[in-house]
Amino acid sequence: MPRPTLIPGENRILHGGDYNPDQWLAYPEILNEDFRLMPLAGCNTFSIGIFAWVSYEPEEGTVSFDWLNRIMDRMAAQNQRVILATPSGAMPDWMAAKYPEIRRVDRQGLRAPYRDRHNHCWTSPVYRDKVTEMNTRLAERFGKHPALGMWHLSNEYSGECLCPLCRAEWAKWLEAKYGSLEKMNDAWWSHFWSHTYTSFNTVEPADSTVDGMMVDWLRFSNDRLIDFMRHEMAPLRRLTPDVLCTTNFMGTNGHLNYAEIAKHVDLIADDQYPAYSSEITDLASSGNYVAFKDNLYRGFHPDRPWMLMESCPESPQWCSPMRTKDPGLHRLEMLQAIGLGAEGTCYFQWRKGKGGMEKFHGAVVDHVGHENTRAFRGVAELGALYQRMEGVVGSKVLAEVAMIHDWESQWGYELSSGPGNGRKDYLHTAVTLHRGLWERGYGVDVLGQDREWDQYPLVIAPRMWMLKPGTAERIRDYVAQGGTLVMDALGGVCDEYNRVLPGGWPGGGLREVAGIWVEEWDWLDEKTHRTARSVDGNSLGLSGSSEVERWAMIAHLEGAEAVAIFEDGWYRGAPAVSVNAYGKGRCITLLGEPDIAVVRRLMGHLGRELHLHGAVSDLPRGVAAQRRVKEDQTYVFLQNFTKDRQTVGIGGRWRSLANDIEIEGSHILNPLGSDVLIQLP
Amino acid sequence: MPRPTLIPGENRILHGGDYNPDQWLAYPEILNEDFRLMPLAGCNTFSIGIFAWVSYEPEEGTVSFDWLNRIMDRMAAQNQRVILATPSGAMPDWMAAKYPEIRRVDRQGLRAPYRDRHNHCWTSPVYRDKVTEMNTRLAERFGKHPALGMWHLSNEYSGECLCPLCRAEWAKWLEAKYGSLEKMNDAWWSHFWSHTYTSFNTVEPADSTVDGMMVDWLRFSNDRLIDFMRHEMAPLRRLTPDVLCTTNFMGTNGHLNYAEIAKHVDLIADDQYPAYSSEITDLASSGNYVAFKDNLYRGFHPDRPWMLMESCPESPQWCSPMRTKDPGLHRLEMLQAIGLGAEGTCYFQWRKGKGGMEKFHGAVVDHVGHENTRAFRGVAELGALYQRMEGVVGSKVLAEVAMIHDWESQWGYELSSGPGNGRKDYLHTAVTLHRGLWERGYGVDVLGQDREWDQYPLVIAPRMWMLKPGTAERIRDYVAQGGTLVMDALGGVCDEYNRVLPGGWPGGGLREVAGIWVEEWDWLDEKTHRTARSVDGNSLGLSGSSEVERWAMIAHLEGAEAVAIFEDGWYRGAPAVSVNAYGKGRCITLLGEPDIAVVRRLMGHLGRELHLHGAVSDLPRGVAAQRRVKEDQTYVFLQNFTKDRQTVGIGGRWRSLANDIEIEGSHILNPLGSDVLIQLP
Amino acid sequence: MPRPTLIPGENRILHGGDYNPDQWLAYPEILNEDFRLMPLAGCNTFSIGIFAWVSYEPEEGTVSFDWLNRIMDRMAAQNQRVILATPSGAMPDWMAAKYPEIRRVDRQGLRAPYRDRHNHCWTSPVYRDKVTEMNTRLAERFGKHPALGMWHLSNEYSGECLCPLCRAEWAKWLEAKYGSLEKMNDAWWSHFWSHTYTSFNTVEPADSTVDGMMVDWLRFSNDRLIDFMRHEMAPLRRLTPDVLCTTNFMGTNGHLNYAEIAKHVDLIADDQYPAYSSEITDLASSGNYVAFKDNLYRGFHPDRPWMLMESCPESPQWCSPMRTKDPGLHRLEMLQAIGLGAEGTCYFQWRKGKGGMEKFHGAVVDHVGHENTRAFRGVAELGALYQRMEGVVGSKVLAEVAMIHDWESQWGYELSSGPGNGRKDYLHTAVTLHRGLWERGYGVDVLGQDREWDQYPLVIAPRMWMLKPGTAERIRDYVAQGGTLVMDALGGVCDEYNRVLPGGWPGGGLREVAGIWVEEWDWLDEKTHRTARSVDGNSLGLSGSSEVERWAMIAHLEGAEAVAIFEDGWYRGAPAVSVNAYGKGRCITLLGEPDIAVVRRLMGHLGRELHLHGAVSDLPRGVAAQRRVKEDQTYVFLQNFTKDRQTVGIGGRWRSLANDIEIEGSHILNPLGSDVLIQLP
Repeated sequence: MPRPTLIPGENRILHGGDYNPDQWLAYPEILNEDFRLMPLAGCNTFSIGIFAWVSYEPEEGTVSFDWLNRIMDRMAAQNQRVILATPSGAMPDWMAAKYPEIRRVDRQGLRAPYRDRHNHCWTSPVYRDKVTEMNTRLAERFGKHPALGMWHLSNEYSGECLCPLCRAEWAKWLEAKYGSLEKMNDAWWSHFWSHTYTSFNTVEPADSTVDGMMVDWLRFSNDRLIDFMRHEMAPLRRLTPDVLCTTNFMGTNGHLNYAEIAKHVDLIADDQYPAYSSEITDLASSGNYVAFKDNLYRGFHPDRPWMLMESCPESPQWCSPMRTKDPGLHRLEMLQAIGLGAEGTCYFQWRKGKGGMEKFHGAVVDHVGHENTRAFRGVAELGALYQRMEGVVGSKVLAEVAMIHDWESQWGYELSSGPGNGRKDYLHTAVTLHRGLWERGYGVDVLGQDREWDQYPLVIAPRMWMLKPGTAERIRDYVAQGGTLVMDALGGVCDEYNRVLPGGWPGGGLREVAGIWVEEWDWLDEKTHRTARSVDGNSLGLSGSSEVERWAMIAHLEGAEAVAIFEDGWYRGAPAVSVNAYGKGRCITLLGEPDIAVVRRLMGHLGRELHLHGAVSDLPRGVAAQRRVKEDQTYVFLQNFTKDRQTVGIGGRWRSLANDIEIEGSHILNPLGSDVLIQLP
Repeated sequence: MPRPTLIPGENRILHGGDYNPDQWLAYPEILNEDFRLMPLAGCNTFSIGIFAWVSYEPEEGTVSFDWLNRIMDRMAAQNQRVILATPSGAMPDWMAAKYPEIRRVDRQGLRAPYRDRHNHCWTSPVYRDKVTEMNTRLAERFGKHPALGMWHLSNEYSGECLCPLCRAEWAKWLEAKYGSLEKMNDAWWSHFWSHTYTSFNTVEPADSTVDGMMVDWLRFSNDRLIDFMRHEMAPLRRLTPDVLCTTNFMGTNGHLNYAEIAKHVDLIADDQYPAYSSEITDLASSGNYVAFKDNLYRGFHPDRPWMLMESCPESPQWCSPMRTKDPGLHRLEMLQAIGLGAEGTCYFQWRKGKGGMEKFHGAVVDHVGHENTRAFRGVAELGALYQRMEGVVGSKVLAEVAMIHDWESQWGYELSSGPGNGRKDYLHTAVTLHRGLWERGYGVDVLGQDREWDQYPLVIAPRMWMLKPGTAERIRDYVAQGGTLVMDALGGVCDEYNRVLPGGWPGGGLREVAGIWVEEWDWLDEKTHRTARSVDGNSLGLSGSSEVERWAMIAHLEGAEAVAIFEDGWYRGAPAVSVNAYGKGRCITLLGEPDIAVVRRLMGHLGRELHLHGAVSDLPRGVAAQRRVKEDQTYVFLQNFTKDRQTVGIGGRWRSLANDIEIEGSHILNPLGSDVLIQLP
Repeated sequence: MPRPTLIPGENRILHGGDYNPDQWLAYPEILNEDFRLMPLAGCNTFSIGIFAWVSYEPEEGTVSFDWLNRIMDRMAAQNQRVILATPSGAMPDWMAAKYPEIRRVDRQGLRAPYRDRHNHCWTSPVYRDKVTEMNTRLAERFGKHPALGMWHLSNEYSGECLCPLCRAEWAKWLEAKYGSLEKMNDAWWSHFWSHTYTSFNTVEPADSTVDGMMVDWLRFSNDRLIDFMRHEMAPLRRLTPDVLCTTNFMGTNGHLNYAEIAKHVDLIADDQYPAYSSEITDLASSGNYVAFKDNLYRGFHPDRPWMLMESCPESPQWCSPMRTKDPGLHRLEMLQAIGLGAEGTCYFQWRKGKGGMEKFHGAVVDHVGHENTRAFRGVAELGALYQRMEGVVGSKVLAEVAMIHDWESQWGYELSSGPGNGRKDYLHTAVTLHRGLWERGYGVDVLGQDREWDQYPLVIAPRMWMLKPGTAERIRDYVAQGGTLVMDALGGVCDEYNRVLPGGWPGGGLREVAGIWVEEWDWLDEKTHRTARSVDGNSLGLSGSSEVERWAMIAHLEGAEAVAIFEDGWYRGAPAVSVNAYGKGRCITLLGEPDIAVVRRLMGHLGRELHLHGAVSDLPRGVAAQRRVKEDQTYVFLQNFTKDRQTVGIGGRWRSLANDIEIEGSHILNPLGSDVLIQLP
């Protein structure tokens, strides 16, 4: 059975963007131009109606979808697919005025005036009723429309509300979770500072001094968001059971737990704004970060492709400063996403609006109005390439390494006084370790603590701050059964309530797996680093010295081998990297934030030992490669993040789809060049 | 007919300051000292009663002007002129307590407690009635007093109020401006993010995401201010029709449109705090900025002199840090203002108060109490010089170049997401271009878009972001008829509603005038610049290379000549400066923020071609010169902003009024020296 | 009669920490461990119940001290002393919910939600009644308990409240202080900006533009705090008249006037978190600052020892970043306090809690749970040393120099617009001058303006901004009678209302004492300094040049001698340091912020002239020494703040208590080493 596609029955790579005809209803000549330009741009998919509520219902109860219907019909006539939005991301002014309860209350206790967007209360029954009614009408009217391809739920769900309605839900949520005040108080250690709660109703969400509570508040806000989203979906599910639902995420946003939200939608869509620019000093660093995110996103629904719901052929206007995008970078960025499992890349936005916040946001169609712009040409050329690449649809990304990522650990770490103290660097370790793999072309699946990773020969577990119940045991089993684990001394610090694990770090039983005890933490300022020197003849084959930044942990060996040791500070000689044989496997522990140099050496060593293959046979630094396979077809995607020509060793015979030539053994990429190769028999 | 003077019938240069006897009523010996010291300081004019409300009306309805009357009489007896203030700039405590509606509401929706000053609602009927009553009483009592010279309306009007009363006016203002919601929504492009307003009453001023609305909100706040100011003036106009009204502005304040406010007052007064200090690295840069401001201010009422209502013989206490003012700088600063059209320089403040926010603000009379201070001596010496300069009164400043300045373009630019993004540098281009003229001694009139500029051989139009209706046509005509226009690629971006002009930039028809099409914008960060290299044999005679900072625009030549081209970035070779012959004239367009080096070369070339004369024949860098003429008299003002001796070529025979010597051909200025020369027959 | 001890009848050095068994009531095995570990750590004193309200009274009116009683009994059984807290520092949730008046109102007028701690209104009758009832019950139950050693009032009192109840008290306080509005308005110079108050009820505390009022608001808030504290004490005083009361201060906290608060408690306790770390570039600078603070604290109650109520064997978690504490630094820090008069050093905290804000705050007992940690061992070793040092109890610190410190001057300086302008550097001068004395081992008493200093040969009076009534006269007398005074040109600027003193600075009569008149102030930015060159043959024996930073004052000599003069700026040649013979003494005036180089030379010269002895005969730079004496015993405390070995000249024969060896003539300290020597006969 073939892998499902983003839109059932649609085998094209989705290509298009946010289309806002509701802004141009008074300009029919513009709408005609749009439909002339769409095929010229090689576009086949458009998101419509994202902020269109007031255009459907200009006064309470008077609803009309006339303009939408006309647009949907024209789309269908041109064989375009529509990703139709529910319009809840922005309420009409009359609603905000008549029903103040819809507007959010902030941590100061102030109710927001009517402004901006993404600003409704998660709980308000009035708003929920309005949303149900609107979504029901939309589904009834367009559920069977031939242009309808997918539902786009609201827009970039985010934020929190502290209104009385949400607080009442908060109290219920707490009672449901903990059952008793005693359990809750113990979980939050709230006897501290006399905060023992004597009622579920007195828990003040705006109290950042109770960090366990704040972790729960983020969980609750995430759950409220999911609850609202599911409420939005209910009429869609009922009326259009065969149309998939998605919502657009925002990268690695630290305030939301996308891993949880993802479980409630059918497929995954990201708004990707990496602001690639050739003048970034280390473009490959941005490339690696995006790849990390893509590997995370692909993992939310591994059995389906994902897509870029928003991206940009130029630059977003909120970049400061807003640089241009160098020639080549747009194709490179889009092919990277496809290489990592996407099967659609859409843009915000099709056409620049004449006014408002995003009038200067990059788009396919510029204010000049015609197709003779650099951005339009780039989109059109990519559209043509996508047609040649249609065989990619349905293929699977190869991955040999697992990395564990946990949003709640980020919350626990950043909300704890001490380690974070305002330094929002939780992802730093994960991204650095990822780079060591990415530079070698190893495929990586980034997965939550609750996922399966036993099948991978190598598991990377960066900053696993809060252990969920069972995680430590599963890690122990994984290693005992022969797995190779790389973790760091910020793992196993707290339990699921962000309470410190007693008995010595890493806690929860991992101390035995790591074979060390971490006694003290030394958090380094920006200007201080430690030097770690490899121990001669160490079993990981490391050599030379590297820098440790941000934090260094003072540990005692309890069976582990010191692979590297600190060279300075009062704790010189203490282990900086250790490895411990445990059962049939081993646990490598980093005792400070590693620099990329040591990560490269480590991943190279492990890759050789574990016989990891990578996407290509020879990959120069700064070039990324991914492999997708489908039955007897193999595709290799290449992106050159450097400004030099680069030669990639690929082995065998391939066809370059970008250049439509045949190549053998190796392939040359231009500066910022990119390509898709299909293996020839 | 002679030019009018600041005070009808008063032919002295006004010299004096803010005088606050209401702070010293319990210290009669101090008041006596004041009247002894005033003539010693060469002062003849005092602003009185600026924050005196509570001293007139200590409880509601009990009004007495006894102390004021005594002071006015003493002033008259010493032939001093009084600039009498309306006291609305600070309400009494009892009024704030009894009528909360007078206090402003901020963007959070919170009503301000009673504190600070300049804090009353613009709309409150209670406050307006109180002001009418107070101003009526003042005019009735002192309208014919011989000391009365001028009305000083309130103080440094500024700020906004979001109270329900102001919001109701806002809705009325919008309805009056747009007539229909449809027109308003189209103007603001508010269909974006579902902000289509269905009522004039739901427009939330605290919503910075609707930038066109925010531009209108600033217009409205400015209009509210004007409306309040006109309300203040009504009883004065009625009772004292011959006494002129002014109010004190605050330089180039970006939140107010002084060009509009100026239309409603009789004469222009500025509060000038340039904080000149010889330790500023580039004192001439400050000098040029002040000259730009003076050229702007003079233009508000070109047929009348203007004045410094506040300035300082020492330093204001709010400077951080508060440096001393070097010997010479005070005279230099004051003569610069006179040279550029002022006929009065007053100080804040006459005497330092013993307490409060401004107890350390520089003054004529220090806490030490006597006249033997450096500041007092400097003021007294300037007063003596002013007596020798009385012939200057009634003369006119010579200007040969026009520069267009538009507050609304600043608002549009800074409120647009993308270009500004927090960088408050709107004036930067204007000030740099001005410097090229100022360094050569060319007189410049800085004028709004709605003014006449046809008569000038050279018009400079920096960052003309928002074109008012008719502006593009008038510019086209100006160039077609033979004018020379210098503009930049940030001109013609938006219409008067801050909506982007379609069809390619510069828009509104200017694309044809400039002979270029700007396709893309590259906003540069602080550390990035582009190099622009002059094209060999270009028609503007430019040579060499210069740096482009902040922004670089990628344009296509459509008939224009590339005068300079970019040397780096992916768009190397694209034009950096272009010139286009259009009709009988030409349009020079800067495609990036120019540095002063290229501006100097450009203005030198244009000055020669257009036969501009300048104020003197030979002006060293760092020295400023202005020329004022009256019938058969010619005055030249010179200021040396360097710490070296400088020789200025002046041609002919002159008398130095500062030194009371005769000179010929050239004049030597001491470090930080300044002088006024009168041409000898 | 022997000097009193901290706890009557207790002759041990107090050593222990904050103990929170209320967090561990569900973990009896942990409580057992605590009592096993306490003697092992050499600890004898524990603070208990600081935030225990909700554990005593989980619902309104239901009070039980059962757990406390059990703990107190176990303490008594082990001969531990308890510092028992009143629990007012954190209200229970039910109280915050039922009585909103208890929660504070901020300067925006918003009432705080229930969160954090130290958050109760100072005035609320409800809270005061609750506190009285709780404290009465505590005193009744435990007043005679053998473990009870001292009362610990609340915790780190601080902050302000602007609720209606506090505002009413504010109006009463003002009326009581000033009697008439006229006097108040004159004191605050509030005729400025029309702020003449016509009622005591309209004085808005959130108005930072009336700086004299703001000084009074800080006084009032301090008085409110004292009033609340005295209210807390009332039942304790009544029921346990023999048990001393203290509260824990927070160093040199600029918002509170500890000198005033100190008058109402029996003994002084500080929470000291110097965050000493060997990687601080200039550790001695931190050491000197702490010594300054200790000399200030000792002076609050010179007839009693003081103590560290909180300190830390590791690092507090709120340090950013949280570094480790180098080996040796903990003992060094504790011995410094003892050397300067403390007789107890307690820790926050005994044991790290599992959750909450301070779960990572350093402690004696770590999460690992056992005694085999570096921190625990360090505490235990210090406990053993304290036993050998018990003879120190009852000894007195020798001091030969007085330094005047005045919190209200700090308020006046920092609230005045101009000098401060956000630069919170009031203490800088005091600390720099102190360092000149500290480096030579001279004992210093830091005292308020209202204290006696006639007996000291040398008085240092830094930044004596606001002169209290009588201060100038007493200074004049002191100098006239032969004293040596060192002051600076920021002395004598304002009167007690922060009104500027007229007639030339330094005012209030000090101009005559200093023999100079300061005409102008030059506040320097961070990058600007002046050079001061010593005048050849000056009477203070100064030589060479030094840097003047932050501010330079331009003065005229009126009888004084210029000891150093400025070398740059327009006022080169003006005096930078002056000395004036006055009566039998002399006044040295610094006309700019001195650098440490000139301070060293000056203090060296004065020390020789005035025959100051110092604690030891030869003290290397970076080593601190203090001398304590008791009848025939002499102790010398030494701390090496450098990372080099240092040799200290001590003369005679001594026993080292740290090393238990006998030494003669000189003593060698290891890097970061410290010791206590007792003189041998």
